[in-house]
Parts: sequence; structure tokens; C-alpha cells
Amino acid sequence: MTNQDCVFCKIAAKQLPASIVYEDSKVVAFLDIAPVNPGHTLVIPKGHYSTLNEIPDSTLAELVKAIKKVSKAVLKATKYKEFNIEQSNGSIAGQVVMHAHFHIVPRYKGDGLTLGKRTREDHTYTEGEVKELTKAIRQAMTE
Amino acid sequence: MTNQDCVFCKIAAKQLPASIVYEDSKVVAFLDIAPVNPGHTLVIPKGHYSTLNEIPDSTLAELVKAIKKVSKAVLKATKYKEFNIEQSNGSIAGQVVMHAHFHIVPRYKGDGLTLGKRTREDHTYTEGEVKELTKAIRQAMTE
Repeated sequence: MTNQDCVFCKIAAKQLPASIVYEDSKVVAFLDIAPVNPGHTLVIPKGHYSTLNEIPDSTLAELVKAIKKVSKAVLKATKYKEFNIEQSNGSIAGQVVMHAHFHIVPRYKGDGLTLGKRTREDHTYTEGEVKELTKAIRQAMTE
Repeated sequence: MTNQDCVFCKIAAKQLPASIVYEDSKVVAFLDIAPVNPGHTLVIPKGHYSTLNEIPDSTLAELVKAIKKVSKAVLKATKYKEFNIEQSNGSIAGQVVMHAHFHIVPRYKGDGLTLGKRTREDHTYTEGEVKELTKAIRQAMTE
């Protein structure tokens, strides 16, 4: 469950240094080495899964519990009140380290980040597309 | 646990129409009415919590399980392979509807979204700041 070329596996195994703020049997959280805002923290499963969809449900439950716990502490420590959770799956989506991770990004007024904001025109569904897509997603879940 | 002025509470209670793709006792998922990409889906707790940090751990576990299930189905139905999870807490962070929700955003090459990408210079920690912040976050968790 460890990938020997993976930077985050090495952090989880303490083979690489990191500013660890939280740790339990399945999860580790540490300050992002290139923070977009002060207190920018990553929460990762200790096991190596490349994307969210490969993480077992039981580990996901532990991860989200840790995200909540760490978010609260990050806000308290930084004195910011708002934050984003962001998680990218695949390089097109912006994922750089191929070990699934959640970003906790504290936010303050005028910080200049586009995270959580729409940066171009929305997609417009054609007639009937919404109905078909809804049906296709529901169908995909039963396959 | 329902806010009578909340649009998402009304969707969960079927008092407002929505393209629902998934539902269980605690969670409902539906297509975003203003999608940034085709298949853009929102996953919400049925109960009214304004931000992630107010959602009970047991409901968070159900939510993240649903996010994984729905993400897989959205990718299958849209034929996209990559996606972002995004969740905003507070208006500065871009939250518009004050009922906690997770965005599933399918991604394709050249879609022009900045989600998951850095859009300005990173923050630079001053000397000693990382150590102090790490300590402060760890301390905040014990309070």
C-alpha cells in the first residue's frame, strides 16, 4: 500500500520531513510546502491511493473526520474564519502529486484566490440534455 | 434541522424541483443548475448545516461515501475521466447558498477552469513562521 516513488508516502512514513499538524492510524495532515494562503494544509490517507475513487469508504470516513478537526484548528490558529476544501483527481484537474489529498485553504477578504469562484461562463445544457444526463448518471450507479 | 428560507432544504424536501441523481436517508445529490462543466453535481446533507464544520461526523461519513459513488457515476455518464471536489465555507470563500454542499466538477482538457490550479503567487512564510504555525494548529486541536 506504499509507493516507493511517492513523496506523500514518504512523508507518511517519516522518510521525508513535513510540518505535521495531525496524525492518526490512517491519516496524516501537514502544512503545504507551497501555501496559497498561510495555514494551507494537506490531509492525506497514509495508504497510497491515486484518486478519491480508490480510497476505501472506511478510510474516507476517517479522512473527512480529520478534515473537519484540522480545519477548525487551522482557523483557530490563523484567526481566519472561512475556508475551502479542494481535491483534484487527475492532471487535467490540477493534481500534481498522484497520491490523493485534500487541500484545506483558509480564506481572507481580498486574498486574490479564484478558488470557489466561477472564472468563466457556465456550461449551457441543450434541450433534453439535463433529463438524459440525470438518467444516465442514475443508470451508471446501478451498473 | 430544516431552514425554511433555504433553497437546498427545499430541494431535499422535494418542495423545489431538481435533477436528483442520488438520494439516501441523509444525503441528496443533484445537477447544479448553473454547471461550470456538463455533469457538475452538488452533494448535500438533507439536514441544514451552514458549513462543513457543523456537520456531524456520522453524516460526513455518509456524504463522502455518496461523493465517491456519485463521482464514479458522473464520470461514467459524461465519459470524462478527471474531476475536482470543491467545497466552500463562507462568502469570502465563494459560498453562495448557506447550506453546506460539495461540488463534483468533471474536467476535460482545455475546459478553461482554474479550479485546482494556482492563480497567483504563493504565500511565503517568514523565518520561524512554519514552526510557530504548526505548533499553534496542534495546540488548537487540544483546546
